Amino acid sequence: MSSIRASVLHGAKDLKVETRTIEPPAPTDLQVAVRSTGLCGSDLHYYHHYRNGDIICREPMSLGHESAGVVVDIGSAVTGFKVGDKVALEVGLPCGECERCKEGRYNICKGMKFRSSAKAFPHAQGTLQDRINHPAAWCHKLPDDMSLDLGAILEPLGVAIHAVRRAQLPPQSTVLVFGAGAVGLLAAAMAKISGASNVVIADIDAGRVDFAVQNGFAHKGYTVPMKRGKTIEENLEIAKETAAEVGKVQKTTGEPVGEVDAVFECTGVPSCVQAGIYACRPGGRLMLIGMGTPVQTLPISAAALREVDIVGVFRYANTYPTGIEVVSEKGPDYPDFSKLVTHRYKGLDEIPKAFEMAGKTKDEDGKLVLKVVIEMDDGGRARL
Amino acid sequence: MSSIRASVLHGAKDLKVETRTIEPPAPTDLQVAVRSTGLCGSDLHYYHHYRNGDIICREPMSLGHESAGVVVDIGSAVTGFKVGDKVALEVGLPCGECERCKEGRYNICKGMKFRSSAKAFPHAQGTLQDRINHPAAWCHKLPDDMSLDLGAILEPLGVAIHAVRRAQLPPQSTVLVFGAGAVGLLAAAMAKISGASNVVIADIDAGRVDFAVQNGFAHKGYTVPMKRGKTIEENLEIAKETAAEVGKVQKTTGEPVGEVDAVFECTGVPSCVQAGIYACRPGGRLMLIGMGTPVQTLPISAAALREVDIVGVFRYANTYPTGIEVVSEKGPDYPDFSKLVTHRYKGLDEIPKAFEMAGKTKDEDGKLVLKVVIEMDDGGRARL
Amino acid sequence: MSSIRASVLHGAKDLKVETRTIEPPAPTDLQVAVRSTGLCGSDLHYYHHYRNGDIICREPMSLGHESAGVVVDIGSAVTGFKVGDKVALEVGLPCGECERCKEGRYNICKGMKFRSSAKAFPHAQGTLQDRINHPAAWCHKLPDDMSLDLGAILEPLGVAIHAVRRAQLPPQSTVLVFGAGAVGLLAAAMAKISGASNVVIADIDAGRVDFAVQNGFAHKGYTVPMKRGKTIEENLEIAKETAAEVGKVQKTTGEPVGEVDAVFECTGVPSCVQAGIYACRPGGRLMLIGMGTPVQTLPISAAALREVDIVGVFRYANTYPTGIEVVSEKGPDYPDFSKLVTHRYKGLDEIPKAFEMAGKTKDEDGKLVLKVVIEMDDGGRARL
Amino acid sequence: MSSIRASVLHGAKDLKVETRTIEPPAPTDLQVAVRSTGLCGSDLHYYHHYRNGDIICREPMSLGHESAGVVVDIGSAVTGFKVGDKVALEVGLPCGECERCKEGRYNICKGMKFRSSAKAFPHAQGTLQDRINHPAAWCHKLPDDMSLDLGAILEPLGVAIHAVRRAQLPPQSTVLVFGAGAVGLLAAAMAKISGASNVVIADIDAGRVDFAVQNGFAHKGYTVPMKRGKTIEENLEIAKETAAEVGKVQKTTGEPVGEVDAVFECTGVPSCVQAGIYACRPGGRLMLIGMGTPVQTLPISAAALREVDIVGVFRYANTYPTGIEVVSEKGPDYPDFSKLVTHRYKGLDEIPKAFEMAGKTKDEDGKLVLKVVIEMDDGGRARL
Repeated sequence: MSSIRASVLHGAKDLKVETRTIEPPAPTDLQVAVRSTGLCGSDLHYYHHYRNGDIICREPMSLGHESAGVVVDIGSAVTGFKVGDKVALEVGLPCGECERCKEGRYNICKGMKFRSSAKAFPHAQGTLQDRINHPAAWCHKLPDDMSLDLGAILEPLGVAIHAVRRAQLPPQSTVLVFGAGAVGLLAAAMAKISGASNVVIADIDAGRVDFAVQNGFAHKGYTVPMKRGKTIEENLEIAKETAAEVGKVQKTTGEPVGEVDAVFECTGVPSCVQAGIYACRPGGRLMLIGMGTPVQTLPISAAALREVDIVGVFRYANTYPTGIEVVSEKGPDYPDFSKLVTHRYKGLDEIPKAFEMAGKTKDEDGKLVLKVVIEMDDGGRARL
Repeated sequence: MSSIRASVLHGAKDLKVETRTIEPPAPTDLQVAVRSTGLCGSDLHYYHHYRNGDIICREPMSLGHESAGVVVDIGSAVTGFKVGDKVALEVGLPCGECERCKEGRYNICKGMKFRSSAKAFPHAQGTLQDRINHPAAWCHKLPDDMSLDLGAILEPLGVAIHAVRRAQLPPQSTVLVFGAGAVGLLAAAMAKISGASNVVIADIDAGRVDFAVQNGFAHKGYTVPMKRGKTIEENLEIAKETAAEVGKVQKTTGEPVGEVDAVFECTGVPSCVQAGIYACRPGGRLMLIGMGTPVQTLPISAAALREVDIVGVFRYANTYPTGIEVVSEKGPDYPDFSKLVTHRYKGLDEIPKAFEMAGKTKDEDGKLVLKVVIEMDDGGRARL
Repeated sequence: MSSIRASVLHGAKDLKVETRTIEPPAPTDLQVAVRSTGLCGSDLHYYHHYRNGDIICREPMSLGHESAGVVVDIGSAVTGFKVGDKVALEVGLPCGECERCKEGRYNICKGMKFRSSAKAFPHAQGTLQDRINHPAAWCHKLPDDMSLDLGAILEPLGVAIHAVRRAQLPPQSTVLVFGAGAVGLLAAAMAKISGASNVVIADIDAGRVDFAVQNGFAHKGYTVPMKRGKTIEENLEIAKETAAEVGKVQKTTGEPVGEVDAVFECTGVPSCVQAGIYACRPGGRLMLIGMGTPVQTLPISAAALREVDIVGVFRYANTYPTGIEVVSEKGPDYPDFSKLVTHRYKGLDEIPKAFEMAGKTKDEDGKLVLKVVIEMDDGGRARL
Repeated sequence: MSSIRASVLHGAKDLKVETRTIEPPAPTDLQVAVRSTGLCGSDLHYYHHYRNGDIICREPMSLGHESAGVVVDIGSAVTGFKVGDKVALEVGLPCGECERCKEGRYNICKGMKFRSSAKAFPHAQGTLQDRINHPAAWCHKLPDDMSLDLGAILEPLGVAIHAVRRAQLPPQSTVLVFGAGAVGLLAAAMAKISGASNVVIADIDAGRVDFAVQNGFAHKGYTVPMKRGKTIEENLEIAKETAAEVGKVQKTTGEPVGEVDAVFECTGVPSCVQAGIYACRPGGRLMLIGMGTPVQTLPISAAALREVDIVGVFRYANTYPTGIEVVSEKGPDYPDFSKLVTHRYKGLDEIPKAFEMAGKTKDEDGKLVLKVVIEMDDGGRARL
């Protein structure tokens, strides 16, 4: 048993750095010094509200679940790892015994214990701690030359991979992505390298759209004008217009995009979900990736009558090995995923500053804020 | 060229019996004397409003599209039919050349010309006429001993077959059907004979629920109590309760149903769609079959976060041969489909009365109104 | 630690009843007194040859893997079971960590340890022992009123369920089953209750075919005449004839079957695989269920040019909960599965006699031999 | 009615240039001056043997089915085309009325009339004629700036697109292609641009393998050593070795390929089909694309026991619009498809020379022979 420092949330905006004790790893666990953790929207919700939508914290909880680190101790029954190995942490631990787990859809296991989520009780503590014990089966060994930032990005990339799988894109399909934040960029990139020959990314922020296109995350971009109607009828008209305008964007071959085969909705905002329904071709798929407004008013007949399927994407299952290949690739079609990390903070004490930055869309210098990463080094033991 | 009588809608509730002329059948057409036509909800909408939702009549139009009849003349290039053959009419004529048509999803062809729908212009005239010319490729020959009422029922049955195909039911699945009208009953029956071992049908009308269960269309029934909240929050609570109550219904093995693998929503009513989302298990499918409120407020996160896919079912494609087998079967698991026809009217002149009856849920004797059928005999030439 | 008796194979036909010791159950295990074990073809191969195809025994091994029993002791971490519970044993223990396991296809996990198979070393010992310790996660609780024979049948039924899932039968499909042994009968029954409206079972033994049809396992039967050609060309001609003859069998509606949507090949015999290819309609599926001749000469172009997919079915994954529902059902379409158990032997000492019987197709009284079951009672402690 | 010149096969190697008459186009037809026709393996079979496998010519027949040309006359009912439009010809005319056609799998329609195939009688005449009348619905308009050679290549590319669709490749999959001829190269390229991150192409000809990799059709190559066993056992051992050697090829990330997710078998040679079975991972897919030995001896258990599905790919359905996009793309991942055309001949009189060349793997200068194209200009009217 040894002592570690942990960042612990005790209430809205009430983060404390505390000392905890950690047991040696159980027989099937690894002990991992956390080195790189990306901040996610759900972390930000907990930080600001001590809750995430309906899910309310019932005890102090460490945040963080997009993480990679270095193996520092190894359980007695673990094989295939050695001290010093770089690993990405898949932080959701499913029950392993329910029907969903057995059929490979462990992301929707009801018994899931997901670090930094307050859904299960006691809460599964997040990764913003010096070290954690984690089942070796859910630690994914990284190539020696892969940066741990990329290891951390495997988590949101998992969502993108899961979305592409569920979208069942036919070859040469056209995909519209709403939202050019981290998940939208990753979803666009995954569609692009998985057979979509025309990926259009749409956002209200022209800077994000430009970033996406210039850095090879999408083929084309569209900046959505800010418009809001006073009634649902007006809003649906605006959504139809948005869909029509996106349809005028030119494909790489010069033709207009028209209706799209699939929409990857990464904002959770009703106006985008509505536009997504209108933008899909008959028989297309609207992938709900962004978590947002839980109850929405939607033109549901416009989906049903054209057999536009509305398909949820909740986290991911079995994506890490694929993700490791994706970020290792250097093909001409692959973006440089490390560009997603726009801001970095060092050590547990800087976490509140990191959260403040993560809540912005641009920093004081006007630079985009995409992914904010906390670097840690276990008090010097796991050198950065 | 000869003359026929046709029932033609000129405005809301303004049905006139007119004399039209009919050409001899084109080389690839059959001329069919219409004998049995079921009235459908969309016919009823046109009858009452001269429109169906957004689709407004722009010229007088005959109604009717659930029809079967007898071949009276044969185009020069047609093979495989003879005068006197019984045929069911598949009344939607797709363009045959678009991507959707070529991939076999002709039901969502944008160029579809569907009889008795005012979407295309000139409107494709419905079947409430003595005789029509129709492409032989879309006339489905019926066994000699099949009643023409069953031939007419193949149309709504097509919707049920299409729903079952799109639902991808695993063996021994549990299905909840909302709505015990004609389509709901057919959808329940198709699920039951296609591998669902527990089909629960729910309706606000206890009589319909009893009918469904007693006549073998569903295994179990649930009568939904009438409740309406004042706010969307209250309504969602009611929807959750409905889902929970349905979950308490016992399976045939005695266990409670719990969450279901699929919901077949056949009402189009928001409270049912909402309850359907809550009733599905994680990874389940909500099939939107009923056409109803075009814009709905839904707990969309409750679907997305549990990967409950929302899947539209619009009409049908390639269902008639399967449907003919279904209604021909005498297996112990098959209901007697002819029981769906609860009311019959003879001849074009009785059509207004038929529409009045089709708008009721019970007749003056308290008997359920399910499917109302118009019998015709081409002025005596095609004897009933 | 206590002592149990076990039936152990030491060489071809060299079964010894031995005393072994058994530890108390590990924290996540149950200790189960085995009560009913069906004998399977692979057991029979090991019994006769001390090998099963390429897989050679490298140490003494208990046989038996179609088993159910009673819980007699419970590991400290197990919840949800009590002493006296009836359980079916799912005897294959996959690694749980590979990609196949995580995607839910644990049946093709390379690290699988399957009781009574000599593939892994040390061999996972079979169930023909008084008691075994087995992970609670792979013990399936049975309803109190279910017989343990039916519990044992869940294992071969799992193969049938897995086959039906992989076959993706459309509603009202026509299925041809080759082989009316236990697996063929179960496969036919599962097809029948999962949406196939015409299931034809074919076998060279008219008695088996009659049994299948009379007991509701299949709709129709066909007795394959014994014919063998001298050359592959002659054999392929015979296979074509077989397919043609099956096509003449009448559907329940009176029409000839014609080409079928799917073939469930449960014999492993080349002549049946060949006939299966010819019997499938273009776009149909040939399910390879029977294990047989490992290298076969097949009319592969006749499959490829008509896009008849050849789909292997190896054991099962996630079938037990479904299987429990299947054998619990009393619907009119369900056969009485207990009729599969045609012969029973009591106690470990009778196992050699049971194997002799299992090797026959008929017993001395001319009664069919389908499933031979060993009843055990743990030396009286687990009363039959 | 006007007169055209046609190349007509009257027997093995007996090609005659004849004068035929051509009617004006029927109302729904286009009249197309054929400009570019690629020679295919089936053409070559007919040329050399007056038959193709089992299919024997019963009357003189023009060859050619990989074709593009220019519209010279337009049927009265056709819209959307003008004289001078470039079109690719989809030369298979399905019946349009059978179940396969209606479900979008018209490639396996039994009533298919495919130009230059002797299966239907009278034979559907091939495209090696000055002009043909062809249904406008099966003429695909090409962008003005697309070469007609690329238009002709859309036909074999259709096979590759169909293969990729049927393979259902997950993102980042590894694909092994056997055969680096035209179809193998196209299949490799389609896999590469449709989500396969590692495409290995294998052939016995090192020159072809080099061509494939250097021109961006595949990521990696493997030259298969020529080895032939004396018995089936020896051949299967060689096939296992081949699979093992391919598994050692390095992925783009440096790791060995190991077992692959899918094999695209484009040779039809038993040794490759056998190696393909061994090369697939459990749960992988072996796509049978190459037409070859119709009856093969295969290690079928090695497929079935690992659930390696064997999936035929016969021609294509609904691929032309996708194909036009593919060859229009200039993305970094796309090869220059026009490099496939290695040899060109002008006019009908040079066709016998073209066939001689098409039968070689290298020309007299040692240059690879991939696709041999016949250029035509309708006697000067449709200038090259």
